[in-house]
Amino acid sequence: MAIVLGPNRYGKAETRLVRVVRDGDVHHVKDLNVSTALSGAMREAHLTGDNAAVLPTDSQKNTVYAFAREHGVGQIEDFALLLARHFTGTHDTIHHARVAIEEYVWDRIGGTGHSFARNGGEVRTCVAHHDRDGRASVVSGLTGLVVMKTTGSEFHGFATDPYTTLKPTTDRVLATAVDARWRHTGTSADFGASYALVRDALLEAFAGTHSLSLQQTLYAMGERALAACPDVCEIRLALPNRHHFLVDLSPFGLDNPDEVYYAADRPYGLIEGTVTRDDAPDAGFAWE
Amino acid sequence: MAIVLGPNRYGKAETRLVRVVRDGDVHHVKDLNVSTALSGAMREAHLTGDNAAVLPTDSQKNTVYAFAREHGVGQIEDFALLLARHFTGTHDTIHHARVAIEEYVWDRIGGTGHSFARNGGEVRTCVAHHDRDGRASVVSGLTGLVVMKTTGSEFHGFATDPYTTLKPTTDRVLATAVDARWRHTGTSADFGASYALVRDALLEAFAGTHSLSLQQTLYAMGERALAACPDVCEIRLALPNRHHFLVDLSPFGLDNPDEVYYAADRPYGLIEGTVTRDDAPDAGFAWE
Amino acid sequence: MAIVLGPNRYGKAETRLVRVVRDGDVHHVKDLNVSTALSGAMREAHLTGDNAAVLPTDSQKNTVYAFAREHGVGQIEDFALLLARHFTGTHDTIHHARVAIEEYVWDRIGGTGHSFARNGGEVRTCVAHHDRDGRASVVSGLTGLVVMKTTGSEFHGFATDPYTTLKPTTDRVLATAVDARWRHTGTSADFGASYALVRDALLEAFAGTHSLSLQQTLYAMGERALAACPDVCEIRLALPNRHHFLVDLSPFGLDNPDEVYYAADRPYGLIEGTVTRDDAPDAGFAWE
Amino acid sequence: MAIVLGPNRYGKAETRLVRVVRDGDVHHVKDLNVSTALSGAMREAHLTGDNAAVLPTDSQKNTVYAFAREHGVGQIEDFALLLARHFTGTHDTIHHARVAIEEYVWDRIGGTGHSFARNGGEVRTCVAHHDRDGRASVVSGLTGLVVMKTTGSEFHGFATDPYTTLKPTTDRVLATAVDARWRHTGTSADFGASYALVRDALLEAFAGTHSLSLQQTLYAMGERALAACPDVCEIRLALPNRHHFLVDLSPFGLDNPDEVYYAADRPYGLIEGTVTRDDAPDAGFAWE
Repeated sequence: MAIVLGPNRYGKAETRLVRVVRDGDVHHVKDLNVSTALSGAMREAHLTGDNAAVLPTDSQKNTVYAFAREHGVGQIEDFALLLARHFTGTHDTIHHARVAIEEYVWDRIGGTGHSFARNGGEVRTCVAHHDRDGRASVVSGLTGLVVMKTTGSEFHGFATDPYTTLKPTTDRVLATAVDARWRHTGTSADFGASYALVRDALLEAFAGTHSLSLQQTLYAMGERALAACPDVCEIRLALPNRHHFLVDLSPFGLDNPDEVYYAADRPYGLIEGTVTRDDAPDAGFAWE
Repeated sequence: MAIVLGPNRYGKAETRLVRVVRDGDVHHVKDLNVSTALSGAMREAHLTGDNAAVLPTDSQKNTVYAFAREHGVGQIEDFALLLARHFTGTHDTIHHARVAIEEYVWDRIGGTGHSFARNGGEVRTCVAHHDRDGRASVVSGLTGLVVMKTTGSEFHGFATDPYTTLKPTTDRVLATAVDARWRHTGTSADFGASYALVRDALLEAFAGTHSLSLQQTLYAMGERALAACPDVCEIRLALPNRHHFLVDLSPFGLDNPDEVYYAADRPYGLIEGTVTRDDAPDAGFAWE
Repeated sequence: MAIVLGPNRYGKAETRLVRVVRDGDVHHVKDLNVSTALSGAMREAHLTGDNAAVLPTDSQKNTVYAFAREHGVGQIEDFALLLARHFTGTHDTIHHARVAIEEYVWDRIGGTGHSFARNGGEVRTCVAHHDRDGRASVVSGLTGLVVMKTTGSEFHGFATDPYTTLKPTTDRVLATAVDARWRHTGTSADFGASYALVRDALLEAFAGTHSLSLQQTLYAMGERALAACPDVCEIRLALPNRHHFLVDLSPFGLDNPDEVYYAADRPYGLIEGTVTRDDAPDAGFAWE
Repeated sequence: MAIVLGPNRYGKAETRLVRVVRDGDVHHVKDLNVSTALSGAMREAHLTGDNAAVLPTDSQKNTVYAFAREHGVGQIEDFALLLARHFTGTHDTIHHARVAIEEYVWDRIGGTGHSFARNGGEVRTCVAHHDRDGRASVVSGLTGLVVMKTTGSEFHGFATDPYTTLKPTTDRVLATAVDARWRHTGTSADFGASYALVRDALLEAFAGTHSLSLQQTLYAMGERALAACPDVCEIRLALPNRHHFLVDLSPFGLDNPDEVYYAADRPYGLIEGTVTRDDAPDAGFAWE
């Protein structure tokens, strides 16, 4: 028996990059949070402290900023792929790169060319991988899209056991914060277009599904997204059930006809699931 | 010399209330976070543990829920005043009530009657006071309105000392998260209308002011809000300066013509100021 | 009626300073978060954008770092006073300075001279004021000291109204996160010694008081702190009641003899109070 | 091509459980955050909304509380295994259970039997899996152990490229927040003892290793933990490099002999790695 080094990676996390493109008086803003992670011939670095194979995380950060100037920033997936390809293509010791990006959206303040208000809704995300053999993957996503429906949600007919006290319901408030990630079949999609399609599909399926459980809603959302977007082969959803409990007002001589709720923090249900095409190519390292 | 009890208050903080009004298939959502704080004849409670004067915080929470059913919830200021008036009017031992409310906004998902997405922008706030002598006050506000302008902001001509290394600039990115609170002259305004007026005034002044300093922008925002809204007599603004530093790309043979920025976390400038009418009535306890 | 500038201040918030003193192989660490805020002749800055009176917040940050090297950092109160005195003493346009500091404690890892683990307990705080007329004040404090007692806490005999459903109890879990700030009579105390005295007094009073309410515990804690520390003339405490609810296990055929609790997040009781000497000097700007 | 359901699980997240054991006047506190996740025959639930296979998350929460009373809570790993075994053993439709627990530590306030202060240091964690075929796994861990060494850390000899500006250093501050998870070979270890051994090993290796890189320190920490604890076969570490930058005081005529640092927030290096025995059994689902 010996003790050995297993899988490892290192990089610069959360490089905050804002790029302003000035088209005369009309400006455009990209606000990103970029995290790079590299792996490769790092055995000596770990075992002896010989850093000859280690490109500093500081250099990775510099590369993010320099590339924003040299190449611009379009869709975050393309920028992530560009960076990942660069790191694996220019350093023999780097065999694999993972680049994750979060994008924060700014809305133009009405009528102005260069004033913006941060759109506080969901954050757009992506994770791109590239290795020295040319294999690559792109997973896009969004997080923090908080939605609620105030009717059209039931939950009954569930399994029971001696620890079950929950009453079935045929009308409840259903609220969740959508965390979705979807895998593209290739690496050359129109990522902006597919983002819009998937986002709309998720919202429409959430709103349009008469829900018998959050599981059923999850599947409907995933199915709708895949149906809408041919180049997406798999989607993973994590949906916390943000419970809204009807308050018992009877001690005060009041009824409560589905009107006054307590929004609970913890605990919360958490429903996680994958919806996939049955002919989806192998995911490889895409979800790592 | 003796040790004595000074000012005190107690209450229930962060009661999360969601109220759904069902107008046929079209539903309306109010999503609030309510904090109550009472004070009065609480000397014995502190000194001897005699709780005869203490209305439990649990009862305060119950009152919030019951009032939402009994009286509905319109503008948060009116609901806060209603609660504060109730507590001071029905318990001899309670001489003063403070009710603070945060409101989270939900946008209807397009075309639906009962599905909503949380608007992740600013949070609307209010603090109402009422005492047993009938004195009352209302402060409205918003927090978390994050704005940026990518030009039209300068900073130069400032004082210097031996610790000054900052270079003057005639063009910088200016970004802040607006935290504003405004005091009403009376307690019977149309609070929804004044909220919209103040919010618009703040955005327009931020976008429309050619800024020579964040102080100047702050004053312009406050002045515009007071000008727009006659029943507001005082506004307090806290504006963190969310620094965006131009990245030095010269080590990589690149220029950076106001294009690539690093968005810094800490430290940050913090500009706080009040803009007021010179005939504003005494604030009393309004800001407590 | 005219619109005018009211009270205002500006400064650099959250300058993160770590100072290492090397006494041979034995090192000492000070880990601080420093926020400065200045006010004075700032009318033109706000109204016309003339910044001649404005010492940049960047210079304030530089001063914090330079002073740490020039003067060292002993007790945070002394460092805060030193900085506040400097700003008001060297710039005619600065009439008043407020310096707030948080200190994070590191414990030496056993047997080592220069390795440390962050003590994740409470944060030590202070706020010092100094104006150009030589008036000064010091408020010390701590935040995030989370304590619990599993017996010796009752709550009954309270006021009731139609919204009261709470049952009286003669034995409950009492938990809180102590947020305390105490005002010194002068500005030249041994702040390290008084910090230790107050902290011990707070813990001993919390543990040693048979509690009939959190209000009573609050007063006992404040009184003990003042009794222990003659140069402290006033203490303000904010104690959230971190509710621990006994879980009803009867549906499962189980009793629950004060054993299994649900620790709730929100809402929570919040008890705030001041304990003071009756001959305390006027607080002036100390609490601002 | 068809769209199908992929891997899925559901459960109750963050059930906050505090258990008090009363040994006369001496009490003992266990403060846990328990998350359960079940999977199995959930196809119909997703596709048709038939919930016959779904044990409600509410029942899972109830089970956590009831088991705390029925079986007590010893080491969190044993409690997690007990719960996971229960869920898979009593419901035919549940084929697999994952139970994750966080434990918060409370220290007794000196000399008292039932008063405690929360130890704000690291959080102890575990994840246990159990399936209906009797396979099981236990991963223990800790998170939030923040450590620093003020000397004995170098970084030089690294790879460079056109984007490299970092200067080599032979003496720097090294700080990180240790996030460690270790896999046990079996499921019947003395988990309390191994926790103490691993924690000590991590601290000793961090303090005792003359560091040439954080990668080298990571490996040394992992190796030491495996050497100390025979029943641990694999350990995974994630170490953010909490950069402390020496402040340039030369503009103020001051030197800075490794004394005054700026503690940065973002970006930060992030070093992740696994140290394993070469004969470790297959991990199966342990890390999921």
